[in-house]
Amino acid sequence: MQPLAIKDIAQFLQGEIVGDEGLHILGVSKIDQGIQGTLSFLANPKYEEHLESTEASAILVSKERELPKNGKSFIQVDDPYLAFCKVMNQYFNPIQQYFGVSESAHIDPSADIAEGVYIGANAVIEADVRIEAGVKIFPNTFIGSGSVIGEDTVIHPNTSVYGDSIIGKRTIIHSGTVIGSDGFGHAPQKDGTYVKIPQIGNVVIGDDVEIGSNCSIDRATIGSTVIEDGCRLDNLIQVAHNVVIGANTVIAGQAGVSGSTTLGKNCVIGGQVGFAGHINIADGTQIGAQSGLAKSVEEKGQQLFGSPAVPLKEALRTHLIIRKLPEMREQIKELQNTIRKKDEE
Amino acid sequence: MQPLAIKDIAQFLQGEIVGDEGLHILGVSKIDQGIQGTLSFLANPKYEEHLESTEASAILVSKERELPKNGKSFIQVDDPYLAFCKVMNQYFNPIQQYFGVSESAHIDPSADIAEGVYIGANAVIEADVRIEAGVKIFPNTFIGSGSVIGEDTVIHPNTSVYGDSIIGKRTIIHSGTVIGSDGFGHAPQKDGTYVKIPQIGNVVIGDDVEIGSNCSIDRATIGSTVIEDGCRLDNLIQVAHNVVIGANTVIAGQAGVSGSTTLGKNCVIGGQVGFAGHINIADGTQIGAQSGLAKSVEEKGQQLFGSPAVPLKEALRTHLIIRKLPEMREQIKELQNTIRKKDEE
Amino acid sequence: MQPLAIKDIAQFLQGEIVGDEGLHILGVSKIDQGIQGTLSFLANPKYEEHLESTEASAILVSKERELPKNGKSFIQVDDPYLAFCKVMNQYFNPIQQYFGVSESAHIDPSADIAEGVYIGANAVIEADVRIEAGVKIFPNTFIGSGSVIGEDTVIHPNTSVYGDSIIGKRTIIHSGTVIGSDGFGHAPQKDGTYVKIPQIGNVVIGDDVEIGSNCSIDRATIGSTVIEDGCRLDNLIQVAHNVVIGANTVIAGQAGVSGSTTLGKNCVIGGQVGFAGHINIADGTQIGAQSGLAKSVEEKGQQLFGSPAVPLKEALRTHLIIRKLPEMREQIKELQNTIRKKDEE
Repeated sequence: MQPLAIKDIAQFLQGEIVGDEGLHILGVSKIDQGIQGTLSFLANPKYEEHLESTEASAILVSKERELPKNGKSFIQVDDPYLAFCKVMNQYFNPIQQYFGVSESAHIDPSADIAEGVYIGANAVIEADVRIEAGVKIFPNTFIGSGSVIGEDTVIHPNTSVYGDSIIGKRTIIHSGTVIGSDGFGHAPQKDGTYVKIPQIGNVVIGDDVEIGSNCSIDRATIGSTVIEDGCRLDNLIQVAHNVVIGANTVIAGQAGVSGSTTLGKNCVIGGQVGFAGHINIADGTQIGAQSGLAKSVEEKGQQLFGSPAVPLKEALRTHLIIRKLPEMREQIKELQNTIRKKDEE
Repeated sequence: MQPLAIKDIAQFLQGEIVGDEGLHILGVSKIDQGIQGTLSFLANPKYEEHLESTEASAILVSKERELPKNGKSFIQVDDPYLAFCKVMNQYFNPIQQYFGVSESAHIDPSADIAEGVYIGANAVIEADVRIEAGVKIFPNTFIGSGSVIGEDTVIHPNTSVYGDSIIGKRTIIHSGTVIGSDGFGHAPQKDGTYVKIPQIGNVVIGDDVEIGSNCSIDRATIGSTVIEDGCRLDNLIQVAHNVVIGANTVIAGQAGVSGSTTLGKNCVIGGQVGFAGHINIADGTQIGAQSGLAKSVEEKGQQLFGSPAVPLKEALRTHLIIRKLPEMREQIKELQNTIRKKDEE
Repeated sequence: MQPLAIKDIAQFLQGEIVGDEGLHILGVSKIDQGIQGTLSFLANPKYEEHLESTEASAILVSKERELPKNGKSFIQVDDPYLAFCKVMNQYFNPIQQYFGVSESAHIDPSADIAEGVYIGANAVIEADVRIEAGVKIFPNTFIGSGSVIGEDTVIHPNTSVYGDSIIGKRTIIHSGTVIGSDGFGHAPQKDGTYVKIPQIGNVVIGDDVEIGSNCSIDRATIGSTVIEDGCRLDNLIQVAHNVVIGANTVIAGQAGVSGSTTLGKNCVIGGQVGFAGHINIADGTQIGAQSGLAKSVEEKGQQLFGSPAVPLKEALRTHLIIRKLPEMREQIKELQNTIRKKDEE
C-alpha cells in the first residue's frame, strides 16, 4: 500500500499529534509486538509498559496520558481503541478493492442492479431482486427471487439468500450463512407421520447488522423473522421462524433461538445459549454461555446464567454449594449418628 | 397469482362451504391479522374471538364449530390447521415454478437425468448420478458420483452431496447442508499423531424427509448412515458416521448424534441435545432441549431431560430441590447448633 | 476395480500371509457381515467368534492370534485395525481419481498453480493464491487472494477460504467449512450501537490436519488464528479469532472455542464443549461432552467434565449425589422432627 500520512489520520480522527507530524506509516501492529513503520494503540493499561519500548512508530493514546520522550509520534484521541478500529475500517479494509459484475454471474433480466456494485463469479441473482448501490456480492452466492439487498451491504462467498429476503444497508453476511430457509414446522398426524407446514413468510434484516459464517436464519411461517438494526451475530447461530431480535443485540457463537421467540434490544447473549420457543426476553438482558432459557424474562437489564437460567448471583451460589454436597451429606450422616448414639445412651 | 375459487379449495380438502360459494381468494392471512380477500383458519381456541371480527374473507373451521353470521365464507373440515397447510402446499408453493436444466450446470455425460427436472445454474452433477423425475436441484449445488436423488426431491442452493449418497423421494434438503462428508474416525498412534480411518460407506436418506440448512450428515465408515422415511431435521444438526435415525423422528436445531448411535422411530429430540456414540434410544423417546444422553434408553416412549438425561419428572424435581440447597445447608447448620447446645447443657 | 493380490497387500503392510498366497480380493467388509471375495480384519475381541464363520476371504489378524483352519487367508500384522486403515487409504481412496483444471474454474492470472492439481468446476481462485502440487480443490469452492494451499491438500465442494489463509500439506477440509471469516469483534458505543473491530489477521492451518464440514474458523483480529499440525476437527465447530489449537488435538462435533483461547497439544475435546475466551488449556487435557470451560487449566493431562468443568471423578460424584438430594432432604426433615419430639418430651 501507499505510505499513509499520520497527519491525515489525525485529521480523520480529530486527534492531536505529539511528535513528528511528517511521519508516514505502512501498516498497523500490536503495541507488544510493535513493528517499525506501523501505527499501534494503547488502550488496555496492562500494556502500558510497552508505550516506551514498542517498535511501532506511531501510537494512538488517550488525551490524559503522559507521554514518553522516545522519538515516537503519538496521536491523542478520546478513545484509542475505537480510533484504531476506525483507522483500520477506513484505510485497511480489503473489501474496498472489489468492483464490477462478473461475466459468469447469472443475473435474471428482471433484477434491478445499481451502478458500482460488485457481483462475483458464479453468483446467481434470480428474478425481481434489487441490488442497491455499493453492494458487494461474492462468488458462488445465491440471491433468491424478490430479495432486496440494501446499499453497501457485503455478502461473502457461498452464501444462500432464499427468495423474498429483505436485507438492509451496510450489513455484512459471512460465508455459508443461509437466510430464509424454511422454518421448522411439521404438523403431527395420527399415524406418526408429519405434514409440512408451508413457510410462506420471509426474513427481514436491518441496517448495520453483521452475521457470521454458517448461521441459519429461517423464514417466518407467515409474516417475518426479524433481525433489527445494529445486531451482531457470531457464527453457527440458529434463528428459527418468526423470531424477532431487537436492535443492537449481540449473540455469540452456536447460540440458538427457537420459533416465535422475541429477544429485546441491547441484549448480550453468550455462546451455545438456547432459547425455548414462544418466549420474550426483556431489553438489555445479559445471558452467560451455555445457559438455557425456558421462560420469558420480564425484568429488563438482568444478568442470567445456567440451564434453566436464573439470576447470575443465584447461579454462582448454587454452583458453589453443589461442590459442597459431599460435605453436606457427611454432616447429615454425623447428625444421624449423634442422635442414634444419644438414643442408645 | 390468479384468483382461487374456494369451491376448488373445498373440493380439494373434501370440506363443506357455509356462506358465499362463489368467493375467490388471492392469498392467505392469520386470523388475528386477517386481510380482505384472503383465506384464514381457526385452530387454536385462543383465537376464537377473531372468528367474528377478522377481515379475512374465508375461514377454514372445524365441523363442530358454531358459525357467526358475518357475511364470511367458511369451509368446514376435520382439521382446519392441517387443511390450511395442505392448501398452502398445493397452491402457494413457490418451488413449483422451477423447471429446466441450466446451460451452466456441469452434468457428467454418464449421469442419468429424468425428464422435467430443474437443475439450476452452476450445479455440478458428477459421473453415474441418477436424478429422477420431478427433482429440483438449485444453483451451486454439488452431487457427487454415483449418488441417486429420488423423485420430486428438492435440494436447495449451495448444498453438497458427496458421492454414493442415496436420497429418497419427496425429500427436501436445505442450503448449506453437507451429506456424506467423512465420518470422524482417527486411529491414535503411539507418537500422539492419528491415522485417518477411511470412510468408505455412504449416506442413505429415506422418502418424505426434510433436512434443514447447514446440517452435517457424515457417511459411514463401512455400511451406511441412515435417516429413515419421514424424519424431520432442523438446522445445524450433526449426524455422525453409522448413525441410524428411525422413521418419523423429529430433531430440533443444533442437536448432535455421535457415531454408531441408533435413534428409534417417532422420537422427538429437543434443540442442542447431544447423544454419545454407540448407544440405542428406544422408539418414541422424547428428550428436552440441551439434554445429554450418555447411555442407551431401553424403555419406549419415555420423556427424558437433563445432562445426563433422567426421566422428566425426576429432572424437574431435582431442579426444584437444587434451588433449595442454600436452605438445606442452613437447616443442617441449625441442627448441628441445636445438638451442640444440648450437649453443652 | 481391478482384483487386488493379497501378496501385494501383505508386502505393503510388511505382514505375513497364512493360507492361500495367490488370493485376490475385490473389496472390504466387516467381519460380522463378511462378503466373499473381500478383505476383513479382526481387532475387537468381541468379534472373535466371527473369525471362523465369516464369509470374508482374507482377514487381517494380529501376530499372536491362533488361526482357524477354515480355508481363509490371513495376513498377520502388528495392528490389524491400523493395517486395514492403511489398506483403505492406499487402495480405496476415491479422491485419487480427480485430476485436471476445469475450464469453468475462475483462476486469477496472478495465481501460482502447480502441475498435476485438480481444480473443479466453478471453483474461484483469486489473485496471488499459491496452489501446490497434488492439491485437489472441488467444485464451487472459493480461495481468497493471497492464500496458500499446501501440497496434497484436499478441499471439498462449497468451501470458502477467505484471503491470506495459509493451509499446510496433506490437510483435508470438508464441504461448507469457512476458513478466515471475520472474528467477532465489536466495540460497544455509549448509544448502545457497536463499531466493527476490523479483523486484519489471518488463519494458519498446519500439515496433516482434517477439518470436518460446516466448521467456522475465524481469522485473527491481528496476527493469526492457528491450528497446528495433526489436529482433527469434527463438524460444525466454532474456532474464534486468535485461537491457537496445539498439535494433534482432537475436537468432536459442535464444540466451540472463544476468542484468544489456547488449547494445548494432544488434547481430546468432546462434542458440544464450550471454551470461554482468553483462557489456556494445558497439553493432554481430556474434556467430556457438553462441558463448559470458564477458567484456564494449568495441570497437564487431566480428565475434566461438567459445566463448569471439574475433574471427572468429582463430576461423577456430584452427579451421583445430586440424584440423592430428595433423600437428603427427607433425612434433614426427619432429624428436625426427631429433635422436635425430643424437645417436647
